[in-house]
Amino acid sequence: MSKQVAVILSGCGVQDGSEIYETTLTLLRLDQLGIGHRCFAPDIMQHHVIDHLSGEVVEGEARNVLIESARLARGNIASLDELDVDEFDAVILPGGFGAAKNLSNFAEAGSDMEPLPELVEALAPFHEARKPIGLMCIAPALVPKLLGPGIAVTIGHDPGVSGAISSMGGLHRSCGVEDIVVDFENRVVTTPAYMLATRIGEAATGIFKLVERIDELMDL
Amino acid sequence: MSKQVAVILSGCGVQDGSEIYETTLTLLRLDQLGIGHRCFAPDIMQHHVIDHLSGEVVEGEARNVLIESARLARGNIASLDELDVDEFDAVILPGGFGAAKNLSNFAEAGSDMEPLPELVEALAPFHEARKPIGLMCIAPALVPKLLGPGIAVTIGHDPGVSGAISSMGGLHRSCGVEDIVVDFENRVVTTPAYMLATRIGEAATGIFKLVERIDELMDL
Repeated sequence: MSKQVAVILSGCGVQDGSEIYETTLTLLRLDQLGIGHRCFAPDIMQHHVIDHLSGEVVEGEARNVLIESARLARGNIASLDELDVDEFDAVILPGGFGAAKNLSNFAEAGSDMEPLPELVEALAPFHEARKPIGLMCIAPALVPKLLGPGIAVTIGHDPGVSGAISSMGGLHRSCGVEDIVVDFENRVVTTPAYMLATRIGEAATGIFKLVERIDELMDL
Repeated sequence: MSKQVAVILSGCGVQDGSEIYETTLTLLRLDQLGIGHRCFAPDIMQHHVIDHLSGEVVEGEARNVLIESARLARGNIASLDELDVDEFDAVILPGGFGAAKNLSNFAEAGSDMEPLPELVEALAPFHEARKPIGLMCIAPALVPKLLGPGIAVTIGHDPGVSGAISSMGGLHRSCGVEDIVVDFENRVVTTPAYMLATRIGEAATGIFKLVERIDELMDL
């Protein structure tokens, strides 16, 4: 029986959902390492829909996070409230603005943000069971309120976001796009991905390292 | 000045647009090889919208191919009618049902299908200039009517689709998921990708080979 990793999505597209390349690169490296996966997403409406050509909000259009995430999961997905910690050895959250708009309200509320209660319920058992948790791009900003204070994470170098993480009780570590930050005590691994990446190959290098470190931590 | 490849998309999601993993893996390997890219998609409405969770058509919903493709391109995209052959060294079409529903009507019409006139206009100059053309998954089924008869391609093993290719004057070659078919005379490279893939790593192996062969052909 191979290791199994849950991947939590927040839609399909960097501006209003999960970052597509970050998610795909995560699933690629998991598969190359012989690790199985299943995707999960909350069955809620998106905060909004962004036209990714113009960058503008599409007024009057509504999309469901789970249904849009199913595009990115090729249908291999279930509602987040069905995520059972006993069936998985680790969990990974790709980034994209969906993490800050659908999985939390960080994009609007900054350090006053609250993570989606369903996400807190899903993640807490992994943290309690000391199963590794990986987060990339903007998703590490959720860590202080999602898992607790004093956990070292990175979102790259952005002073606004790193300041918000600190003010929520988190520990921010500056990090290059092709590297990772590991909090061994809390078994949390983070990488900046498209907070810094200007090319997909850069994002891939950091994301592959994150997945490889998650793989190692699953053995410990 | 690095080599430049145009990537033609047909939406964002395997059931009604471009296959997301095939597209991402194509862009990853291009970038890893130091090759630049730009995406293009027709500015037309999708044939239909599929709920990727249920697999059902969403009645009354309409989405634009270019706008949805922009999700998959992270905004690095232009309308297909702006594609200028002089600016690119090769062109690649990922698969997904969008190739058979938006870039052509193959999904409905089979061997009576017609490719989108705008796509024919975009691809013909590449073929005439002997610039390499890569196609994956279901997209090779468009080759006989898009580029002409007698060009060797693969869509894997599917007897229905390979029969349709033959009846349109194409040459179908059976091929495993991790391999490619190359028509050297016509400079056309194809791989089955998700016509056969059961894991993303399998698709990656064939797609990486396709991109590497396109890279070699650009030097010849």
